[in-house]
Amino acid sequence: MLPRTYDNQNCSIARTLEAIGDRWTMLVVREAFLGRRRFDELHRTLGVARNVLANRLGRLVDDGILEKVAYQERPERFEYRLTEKGVELWPVMISMMKWGDRHAAPDGPPMLILHRDCGGEVNERFVCDACGEAVDARAADARPGPGVRPTPAALR
Amino acid sequence: MLPRTYDNQNCSIARTLEAIGDRWTMLVVREAFLGRRRFDELHRTLGVARNVLANRLGRLVDDGILEKVAYQERPERFEYRLTEKGVELWPVMISMMKWGDRHAAPDGPPMLILHRDCGGEVNERFVCDACGEAVDARAADARPGPGVRPTPAALR
Repeated sequence: MLPRTYDNQNCSIARTLEAIGDRWTMLVVREAFLGRRRFDELHRTLGVARNVLANRLGRLVDDGILEKVAYQERPERFEYRLTEKGVELWPVMISMMKWGDRHAAPDGPPMLILHRDCGGEVNERFVCDACGEAVDARAADARPGPGVRPTPAALR
Repeated sequence: MLPRTYDNQNCSIARTLEAIGDRWTMLVVREAFLGRRRFDELHRTLGVARNVLANRLGRLVDDGILEKVAYQERPERFEYRLTEKGVELWPVMISMMKWGDRHAAPDGPPMLILHRDCGGEVNERFVCDACGEAVDARAADARPGPGVRPTPAALR
């Protein structure tokens, strides 16, 4: 936890960092956008300790970013789905991705964000480079980019 | 540090989180954008322990996001300025701010981002709502918004 003086800072960046300012948390959100929603799947693909993952998922549910939904009854099984508030983190995630593409992707972007309707690439202003349309999370698809590397077998 | 399996994830979001995925780090970047660049000033306004601040500043310099520049010779004094790579974090910061404004600012945004040329508000796509121009960090000003609260005397 950050100290009280931090809480006293009335700033929307500080507030957002309280919710997602932890590396694992934002990676869990990324996985949710990619459709990975189940505990075991997240545990495997992120390579995160189960207790850390359970903690982050619990906080994301408490913050209203994910919701825990039963997808099977007997035995009861749950998955974690992005809420509307969670989906609205898409621009934060894309901005992070674009910065990483520019500064830490020597072989090119590992992942491309494409406009579903026309296949054009979504740019840093969340606009389709091909057709000029404004794109949001629901109108975008993720595809492997030129910098992609094969997933190690252990993580498949 | 995150475990090795995390490093193996070839993802620009993960790479960005390696650089800024720590709450204090992104708040130091915010302060740099607001023109607070000196150790004592950052220490006072953030209310962060000196050793933590020194560690985060050192990492930001190592990552090429800040540069340490002497602004006075006798005695020698330094400040931390955003590099071009650091300035390019502006969209990440603004996206975080907009999300916080929407979900954690019941009294309205504490800070407004305005287009310097015309005074219009910069929207979530980094475009001026008034004149329609695309805005970047250097064309934007920060101003107190309706949700601002007085700074406690101790932090002034």
